[in-house]
Amino acid sequence: MARTIRVTVWNEFRHERHDAAVTAIYPRGIHEAIAEPLRAEPDMEVRTATLDQPEHGLGGDTLANTDVLAWWGHMAHAEVSDSVAARVQGRVLEGMGLIVLHSAHMSKPFTRLMGTSCLLRWREAGEKERLWVVEPGHPIVDGVGPYFEIEQEEMYGERFDIPAPDSTVLISWFAGGNVFRSGCCFTRGKGRIFYFRPGHETFPTYRRPEVQRVICNAVRWAAPGDGPVMKLGDSEPPLERM
Amino acid sequence: MARTIRVTVWNEFRHERHDAAVTAIYPRGIHEAIAEPLRAEPDMEVRTATLDQPEHGLGGDTLANTDVLAWWGHMAHAEVSDSVAARVQGRVLEGMGLIVLHSAHMSKPFTRLMGTSCLLRWREAGEKERLWVVEPGHPIVDGVGPYFEIEQEEMYGERFDIPAPDSTVLISWFAGGNVFRSGCCFTRGKGRIFYFRPGHETFPTYRRPEVQRVICNAVRWAAPGDGPVMKLGDSEPPLERM
Amino acid sequence: MARTIRVTVWNEFRHERHDAAVTAIYPRGIHEAIAEPLRAEPDMEVRTATLDQPEHGLGGDTLANTDVLAWWGHMAHAEVSDSVAARVQGRVLEGMGLIVLHSAHMSKPFTRLMGTSCLLRWREAGEKERLWVVEPGHPIVDGVGPYFEIEQEEMYGERFDIPAPDSTVLISWFAGGNVFRSGCCFTRGKGRIFYFRPGHETFPTYRRPEVQRVICNAVRWAAPGDGPVMKLGDSEPPLERM
Amino acid sequence: MARTIRVTVWNEFRHERHDAAVTAIYPRGIHEAIAEPLRAEPDMEVRTATLDQPEHGLGGDTLANTDVLAWWGHMAHAEVSDSVAARVQGRVLEGMGLIVLHSAHMSKPFTRLMGTSCLLRWREAGEKERLWVVEPGHPIVDGVGPYFEIEQEEMYGERFDIPAPDSTVLISWFAGGNVFRSGCCFTRGKGRIFYFRPGHETFPTYRRPEVQRVICNAVRWAAPGDGPVMKLGDSEPPLERM
Repeated sequence: MARTIRVTVWNEFRHERHDAAVTAIYPRGIHEAIAEPLRAEPDMEVRTATLDQPEHGLGGDTLANTDVLAWWGHMAHAEVSDSVAARVQGRVLEGMGLIVLHSAHMSKPFTRLMGTSCLLRWREAGEKERLWVVEPGHPIVDGVGPYFEIEQEEMYGERFDIPAPDSTVLISWFAGGNVFRSGCCFTRGKGRIFYFRPGHETFPTYRRPEVQRVICNAVRWAAPGDGPVMKLGDSEPPLERM
Repeated sequence: MARTIRVTVWNEFRHERHDAAVTAIYPRGIHEAIAEPLRAEPDMEVRTATLDQPEHGLGGDTLANTDVLAWWGHMAHAEVSDSVAARVQGRVLEGMGLIVLHSAHMSKPFTRLMGTSCLLRWREAGEKERLWVVEPGHPIVDGVGPYFEIEQEEMYGERFDIPAPDSTVLISWFAGGNVFRSGCCFTRGKGRIFYFRPGHETFPTYRRPEVQRVICNAVRWAAPGDGPVMKLGDSEPPLERM
Repeated sequence: MARTIRVTVWNEFRHERHDAAVTAIYPRGIHEAIAEPLRAEPDMEVRTATLDQPEHGLGGDTLANTDVLAWWGHMAHAEVSDSVAARVQGRVLEGMGLIVLHSAHMSKPFTRLMGTSCLLRWREAGEKERLWVVEPGHPIVDGVGPYFEIEQEEMYGERFDIPAPDSTVLISWFAGGNVFRSGCCFTRGKGRIFYFRPGHETFPTYRRPEVQRVICNAVRWAAPGDGPVMKLGDSEPPLERM
Repeated sequence: MARTIRVTVWNEFRHERHDAAVTAIYPRGIHEAIAEPLRAEPDMEVRTATLDQPEHGLGGDTLANTDVLAWWGHMAHAEVSDSVAARVQGRVLEGMGLIVLHSAHMSKPFTRLMGTSCLLRWREAGEKERLWVVEPGHPIVDGVGPYFEIEQEEMYGERFDIPAPDSTVLISWFAGGNVFRSGCCFTRGKGRIFYFRPGHETFPTYRRPEVQRVICNAVRWAAPGDGPVMKLGDSEPPLERM
């Protein structure tokens, strides 16, 4: 029960190094902003990895030793190697949790796991977002109010071209007139996936307590258990006399 | 995280007192057989309640102080008062977990929560049941193998007239030629519900380690969290200037 | 394929008789406004029924001869007899389609079929509603645009206490800051149910082409087919030698 | 309503040309056996395509002019070009229906659309399969009984590594002791997908009336409608003054 959850926070880490406005908000990178509150949790062990590290920081046995992977990417999705994307997908099917953040809706691991375009409507206008809880019994909204607001965010709007989520936990209202399924749970293979919308690089969204709380809850929800290893792809002798 | 889960095991407790064959298997009642392994769990606090107690053992603040209620009933569903059934339903909507066991598919709390007939096909022939895991990543099958067998059980067969479960975790194969969705998860209001098929009174099913393991996992899965209390049924002032 | 769909439009028919503002909008009753465009469809045969008729207009073999029932009610839910509500529920389980309109979210047939409170947040401020399509491949939004707007409507907001729909086809944005799952599909027994949010009695919502189109599509989607009659509740001989 | 459905039946067409036992059963190919009963339907227009044709028979505007594509493959999945697989996936997201038959569970179009391994357990023992209807109200089982049997089939068993279907319509019982979700509905993008298990090449399964009926129903269920074309991937001006 009290097993330590080994979390890897992956970040593209480009905006923060090349855009002064983003550097000002996240001087140590978005990954460190996401990792920091998780490091304070007694049951979590947190490391980070970034695109420009060898094998994007996910080489060796890093993925094998990751229980939950958080992923932020935006401008450089295409630079993620297909082999790393395939290994992430494979580990999710084996049971690793995956937290897909904001613009990572177009990341290779997510689009491969969904099988759809994952496209959506968007607008950079710094408008108000209000995230409504629609499944108040879901563990991902433990400790959250009936809704929470972000004064300024990028807008993402429907149609979001994803398979219908197993559970839609949050729906966003945007001042400019759009709605969006902002907290979406999926199971693929043995792995649990949570897509969480907020987090544009030009706003300090990952410093917000509600956003941090949702991510922390999602890590616990997505952590793998001890379910059976199913034999797959093999021929099987009869279990019964026929 | 390490919160104690307050479990109440409810049992009709009639077969065990009037049918010698059942008494021989469950001398202290099915409820005690279900409760015993849960009492060994450090994070659970377990009590029992039965039909013939005042208010069916669920009076006063018992339900208010129950995090997860397990329910076994068969021959006396009609004797459960409508007001107790309504209170159980209301507590589930507030967040209480409910574990519905075997013939409790026809119990008042379950049929009220489902809204369907909950009827099914059945056969008492003491045949072999093999329960296959179909969602190996679900916490309810932690520690369970790809399948497990029960040498002799009552058969329940499809069509099981329930709403499509949020997650179908186990499907049973029966020697006599039938299949059945044997482990079914539902969310209603803030509460989680797990229907678990095995457990006919004339077989020592609740003494089996796999059955005990699934029930124990289900109790943890169904335990309420700390999600928001949503205002419902009230008029609401605008949140935005219109 | 070209079977005629027998539609019954049920309406409480109280506001229209007692409130001059509503009478002005729907002089012949909301049921007639809903029925009128359906009557123009070559594959539909439409009748109406209202609360104050004997057996609420649903006596005799009316329900048995109804393929799809549309239901509007608001101020007099409690006056619908339990036995009529139970018969509607039973017919849905047998396969009759049910279109639940606006304030009928609290009607007896719907709450019995859902098993939850079906409560929600609301506000009567005549604000703008924009309904976004989130499942553009669903037959219920055939012929509809990416979104449509209603200049003035009552607000319904989340949390809407329903079981997670099988399919959430439309999500509403409200000017006052709320969101709502406005087009929700359910299957219960053999019957298909569509909940459709708009339709407050003080606005001419049922005269809008998009609203009429959605209701017409929903009637076709909910019309029963020719699926198997499953034996339920009976003991069954083995199908295989054991 | 009475629109013609343009069906393309795609087949690998290898076993039938190289294995005398299969040739004996399907002398004109599995595709012709599948196509034949569909050709008798007044609302369908049916053509076929096979792997060894140029562009696998799916070049030019064939896919653009296909409403529903049925797909049978087994030994040569790897020979299907990635670009054709990607075009099939893209057409499904646009709304084309896809009927995935038997061993096509490992075909490129299906695995790309699912995002999972799609692996399963299997056994070639010519054993009895009994397919139970679990959603009797679903249009795919119109005209089918509570169950139907195939005397001899290959066994496919759980765990079937797919995302949880939107609707699980059929579950198979196998004499050798296994169960399988045999009729599975998915929506991806605007397209509907039906996976249907039976159809091993060494048995005359596609000559069986129930199997033909299910495929025919599935074609109608999967045929695209007239839903909105959602703008995706574009920046959007505000709809409301902010």
